[in-house]
Amino acid sequence: MPILAVGSIAFDTIRTRFGAVEKVLGGSATYFALAASHFTEVRVIGVVGDDFTREHEDVLRGRGIRTEGIEHASGKTFHWAGEYMENVNEAKTNLTHLNVFESFRPQIPRDFLNTDFLFLGNIQPQLQMDVRQQMNGARLVAADTMNYWINNTPRELIEALRNFDMLLINDGEAKMLAGERNLPAAANKVLAMGPKALVIKHGEYGATIFFREGAFGIGRHPFRAPALPIEEVKDPTGAGDSFAGGFLGYIASQGELSREVLKRAMFYGGVMGSFAVEDFGTRRLQSLSREEIDERFKLFRELTHLD
Amino acid sequence: MPILAVGSIAFDTIRTRFGAVEKVLGGSATYFALAASHFTEVRVIGVVGDDFTREHEDVLRGRGIRTEGIEHASGKTFHWAGEYMENVNEAKTNLTHLNVFESFRPQIPRDFLNTDFLFLGNIQPQLQMDVRQQMNGARLVAADTMNYWINNTPRELIEALRNFDMLLINDGEAKMLAGERNLPAAANKVLAMGPKALVIKHGEYGATIFFREGAFGIGRHPFRAPALPIEEVKDPTGAGDSFAGGFLGYIASQGELSREVLKRAMFYGGVMGSFAVEDFGTRRLQSLSREEIDERFKLFRELTHLD
Repeated sequence: MPILAVGSIAFDTIRTRFGAVEKVLGGSATYFALAASHFTEVRVIGVVGDDFTREHEDVLRGRGIRTEGIEHASGKTFHWAGEYMENVNEAKTNLTHLNVFESFRPQIPRDFLNTDFLFLGNIQPQLQMDVRQQMNGARLVAADTMNYWINNTPRELIEALRNFDMLLINDGEAKMLAGERNLPAAANKVLAMGPKALVIKHGEYGATIFFREGAFGIGRHPFRAPALPIEEVKDPTGAGDSFAGGFLGYIASQGELSREVLKRAMFYGGVMGSFAVEDFGTRRLQSLSREEIDERFKLFRELTHLD
Repeated sequence: MPILAVGSIAFDTIRTRFGAVEKVLGGSATYFALAASHFTEVRVIGVVGDDFTREHEDVLRGRGIRTEGIEHASGKTFHWAGEYMENVNEAKTNLTHLNVFESFRPQIPRDFLNTDFLFLGNIQPQLQMDVRQQMNGARLVAADTMNYWINNTPRELIEALRNFDMLLINDGEAKMLAGERNLPAAANKVLAMGPKALVIKHGEYGATIFFREGAFGIGRHPFRAPALPIEEVKDPTGAGDSFAGGFLGYIASQGELSREVLKRAMFYGGVMGSFAVEDFGTRRLQSLSREEIDERFKLFRELTHLD
């Protein structure tokens, strides 16, 4: 079944130990959509400026992604510049020009309103709520957020959390949101705020999904998927959104929420994250074949399974 | 088959968010031996002072551990005091009285000289080498080390590494030893120094075993075991040595080094580490039953396995 994704579409200028790129296509909705497109139809909601060309759009359309929901505004596309020279796990931001993204008010095209699966990328909690209300028939609503919203709009975020089925965040965000240093304890506090399931991403150590008691009728035990030990992380930008794309794209493709589907989805999330960092920008996500994805899925299994 | 363990025997004074204990039995050899004793016969080499009573020795003997190799010296037993108030992953040391441990020169009783499996706890690399030479018929030699030796006796450590089959260290130690920030790259550099296999412990994220090309004839792919998400880490002291005890105790009990045995050993390592932190000192390792161990092994499998 299709999945609808709302988030940023951006041009990224990135420098790492392995090189640099200037104004390449990026943003949370872009990475998510490209990763998820390997599993199911993706419908993107975002905003771009005059500098977003047909060629940029073709990167998405080439993967079968539905781009009718992308608003073309007058002005420039969101531009972010950052580097990972010292620490591959944390970007040093050099420039953030929100441009047309600053006044982004997501409007869902009528045709997309009854999409069953919804991903709310890392944008203002208030906007996430707006979209969620436009699509109140959605079967599964998953969202991302970040430190900025936890610190600056905690009330709006906590209000929004009550309306999400799943939240995907990283270790630091989970601890900050819960005000708790122990990770499993933090997970339980976040689950008590509303979501039925919480995916916490541990970067190079993989990710864990925690469940609220009785959620989806699939038991309380958490499940952990690994990340691949990668010697050359060329560009970590978008790894988290690619994880979300693999995770939710696979769930939407299965159309059901059994424990087995969620476990495999965690693996596909890790798989797509591991591909994303192998090259700059979205390059690797574009060139991927389903065979390569399945091959890597096997590698993840071999890395963690006893027999 | 039996395993011989050389390391510290200490009295630990520990404070955590959950309470405090004074001068309880600890030390690397103690934690290792108690954990490994659930799998195979353990022979301990260490040194204690006059304050080490029959009751202390009975803690080991009660688990069938062979204590004839423990030297009783005149003076006091090694005493360490530390706390984990701010950060459960890093001890703040308040006191280190080496006492009789300062002049420890391990002597292996004749009866133990042909033990096939050998664990060299975290002591001076020179002493680790001495023991290794006394036991040059050992089939598998595994060792631990720490930042202190990496910084202060790098030449001796690197010389010793050539003579170990396996090394067990944590993320920070691996990166420091290799002079490399990327973990898989650091692992490969350490493997190039001598050991056939390298176990890197990631604390709450589990542990990964990396293999040198052709090592043990079991392929190059790494294997990762999880750690249990634990809400109440009462006392993290000894978790690493308990991991080593479960890991090597299981290997010795199987007597062979197949890939399957090593994978299960990684799980048993994680299992014993997860028990160790549930209570202060060695309490939980003493009270454990084999049933509880197998139950938790299943939990580890459920946490990571797809079907």
